[in-house]
Amino acid sequence: MNSGAYESDNIFARILRGEIPAQKVYEDNSTLAIMDVMPQAEGHVLVIPKAASRNILDADPATLGPLIAVVQKIAIAAQEAFDADGVTIMQFNEAPAGQSVFHLHFHVIPRREGVPLRSHSGKMEDGSVLAANAEKIRQALAG
Amino acid sequence: MNSGAYESDNIFARILRGEIPAQKVYEDNSTLAIMDVMPQAEGHVLVIPKAASRNILDADPATLGPLIAVVQKIAIAAQEAFDADGVTIMQFNEAPAGQSVFHLHFHVIPRREGVPLRSHSGKMEDGSVLAANAEKIRQALAG
Repeated sequence: MNSGAYESDNIFARILRGEIPAQKVYEDNSTLAIMDVMPQAEGHVLVIPKAASRNILDADPATLGPLIAVVQKIAIAAQEAFDADGVTIMQFNEAPAGQSVFHLHFHVIPRREGVPLRSHSGKMEDGSVLAANAEKIRQALAG
Repeated sequence: MNSGAYESDNIFARILRGEIPAQKVYEDNSTLAIMDVMPQAEGHVLVIPKAASRNILDADPATLGPLIAVVQKIAIAAQEAFDADGVTIMQFNEAPAGQSVFHLHFHVIPRREGVPLRSHSGKMEDGSVLAANAEKIRQALAG
């Protein structure tokens, strides 16, 4: 298949440009981590490289090392912040694989025993809940 | 939660030591990629670091850069080998998050439009099918 080109009006590109807000939990020169606004579980974070790529299939390999290092940091912090029983990490490439925003990103989702993931097409989480959860993860990162 | 220690009798450790066979698609100094024997879709590959860690939560960060580079290589090759419509990448940490073998690994799963993932607790795939699929991916990697 032809996966198509990168389109710079996707929502993560707009967040990276500061055109629309997000609940940020971590940022460095190459990577941004934000709360997912339709969390599949409490504390669902998205880890996003600042470099433009549609997904992992077209990404510059140099992007991936720093990105996965942040994925690990966030996974450890989110597990601690939510006293989670585990962490599910997912990364989707093209719509048939589950991708809905076409800028490379990793999902980092704290899990609890016996609690299935919610659908990603569910309702938007309340902004105050996302802000509080972002603060919990920032504190775990700082601790 | 206490995630527990690394146990060296897990099935991936045994494969890495050559004690039990696997359909290998890629190997370098730090990483092994093999066919999943209970594929959730045709061409389901597992990418495994040779370094011992239970999952991403306890992994040496130095392990992750080379590992994700191979995940990308395999994703691109598997998409090509199976003319897939996308690729789902998953990495599970602890049983409540979906982990069933306690040595760090990434799932790389070629996807087709409209075809849901099969359960991972399904039947073992026929060895000749796994061997043929491994060969397809090796050829895509070589191409």
